[in-house]
Amino acid sequence: MRAYTEYLTFNTPERTAFINITEQVNQALFKSSIKEGLCLVNAMHITASVFINDEEEGLKEDFKLWLEKLAPHGARYQHNATGEDNGHAHLKRTVMGREVMVAVTKGKLDFGPWEAIFYGEFDGQRPKRVLVKIIGE
Amino acid sequence: MRAYTEYLTFNTPERTAFINITEQVNQALFKSSIKEGLCLVNAMHITASVFINDEEEGLKEDFKLWLEKLAPHGARYQHNATGEDNGHAHLKRTVMGREVMVAVTKGKLDFGPWEAIFYGEFDGQRPKRVLVKIIGE
Amino acid sequence: MRAYTEYLTFNTPERTAFINITEQVNQALFKSSIKEGLCLVNAMHITASVFINDEEEGLKEDFKLWLEKLAPHGARYQHNATGEDNGHAHLKRTVMGREVMVAVTKGKLDFGPWEAIFYGEFDGQRPKRVLVKIIGE
Repeated sequence: MRAYTEYLTFNTPERTAFINITEQVNQALFKSSIKEGLCLVNAMHITASVFINDEEEGLKEDFKLWLEKLAPHGARYQHNATGEDNGHAHLKRTVMGREVMVAVTKGKLDFGPWEAIFYGEFDGQRPKRVLVKIIGE
Repeated sequence: MRAYTEYLTFNTPERTAFINITEQVNQALFKSSIKEGLCLVNAMHITASVFINDEEEGLKEDFKLWLEKLAPHGARYQHNATGEDNGHAHLKRTVMGREVMVAVTKGKLDFGPWEAIFYGEFDGQRPKRVLVKIIGE
Repeated sequence: MRAYTEYLTFNTPERTAFINITEQVNQALFKSSIKEGLCLVNAMHITASVFINDEEEGLKEDFKLWLEKLAPHGARYQHNATGEDNGHAHLKRTVMGREVMVAVTKGKLDFGPWEAIFYGEFDGQRPKRVLVKIIGE
């Protein structure tokens, strides 16, 4: 069994952003030389997300508006009593998820036709990391 | 380490459906001959879901009504400007999740008493795939 | 490849509770002697959750209030026609997630600065299990 580990860093100019990281994960897989196995991609920060959906601009706007309705930035959060103002971002990341697992088959991410991996940032403007861990043979 | 890959295809007559696929995953595990490891089951389409919950009819109806409230079919979605009308389905699948990981112990899916694996379809009436990937020994 | 399996049991005095289980997972990893691999932690019951977020009291209260708004205990659920009154708990667990996957790197859970693993209980007051499965080398 082989294991490969890589850390990606993102520092978004906006507080909320969705970044397609499929190509970076593809490159990590290529470097790993793993042909059959599993690939974990997870946000290492708790106000960010890694998820799989469609590379389509309208949909990204739909996600932002929907998340703002489910967990408004301006609502009252007890977490914000710590001096933070990112209570909403912890909830938004929970809806979108922390991580994805992708099968590795014949040396490729085994994806359906529209699957793409996104980094979802809900409290950006500072460097934050994403972990790629691949195990297999 | 061994790896086993199988693709299941679903074509539901309704646009929204929940299908218990536990037995199909059990059979994939049996074919794999893997005794200890991890089993990934994921939707390969981005308007569908794989999740674990209870095989109970009332609960399935609760999920449908609840998702319709969280992401109504008839709301305005920018994604639908592409000509699609499945914006809601991308959001519903996000709530339910894309994938599950199940431990394989002594040759079996290591489940609690009520756990069952479901395929969740939110934009059906066409063939869509689910991936089963098992690695271990 | 090695595999390690451990079952943790929780019996919370309250129906809703969040318990930080990071140390128990750390100890399972230590016992496994695995240095590189993947660690799955999942609820084995369908009204409970395993998730990763921040060890901060205010945030835990925010989660509880938010989940109560998304899936109120007192709303009508068809699932409750079975004699249960935990319909809400199935939905809450769905929002929070069933499982987490954590990378194992150099013998440690490969975590960002604030990541902690929580057991989320939404229908407690009875013994319920969590599975820790680690594979790697």
